[in-house]
Amino acid sequence: MIKVSVMYPAGEGKTFDMDYYCKSHMPMVRQKCGAACKSMAVEQGLAGGAPGTPPTYAAMGHLYFDSVAAFQAAFGPHTKEIMGDIPNYTNIQPVIQISEVKM
Amino acid sequence: MIKVSVMYPAGEGKTFDMDYYCKSHMPMVRQKCGAACKSMAVEQGLAGGAPGTPPTYAAMGHLYFDSVAAFQAAFGPHTKEIMGDIPNYTNIQPVIQISEVKM
Repeated sequence: MIKVSVMYPAGEGKTFDMDYYCKSHMPMVRQKCGAACKSMAVEQGLAGGAPGTPPTYAAMGHLYFDSVAAFQAAFGPHTKEIMGDIPNYTNIQPVIQISEVKM
Repeated sequence: MIKVSVMYPAGEGKTFDMDYYCKSHMPMVRQKCGAACKSMAVEQGLAGGAPGTPPTYAAMGHLYFDSVAAFQAAFGPHTKEIMGDIPNYTNIQPVIQISEVKM
């Protein structure tokens, strides 16, 4: 299983519409990717590790696929449309990472 | 539900023993935190979002608790021992973030 993490760095002047993200963007991604997307998860940053510190990321979205190839086949054809929706909920340039789920 | 993410930035000279992390460190954390830790997850970085780019994080570990208070109560008394185990599997200073699980 692989996990595609889309992480939105927090910072001054950064905005993120969590309601739109959960109710519109992520459901659209799931619909576009179809059954290849095994599950998804969304988190909102609360705090950093040390007391009183801010979170590194304002928000994170995660998509799970069986393999990198399965992700590319499912997501690839819809990349432009999915990426084009980003300005509708945030002015943050996300950091994207593909990881292998180990446990 | 809250998620505590411990993210290990990748980079030259950075090492991470995934075997030790999954078989020794994370089980120790689970044992110390007890039933307050609802679940845990581990990922190994494979790639960045753009083709041919490296992952931001070499590895990530996640712990789920009912609340920040539940995390602090369960983890706090064992912080020194858990943090003291880090040099046994990596030379990376992790980035820690607490997030609220939205979906």
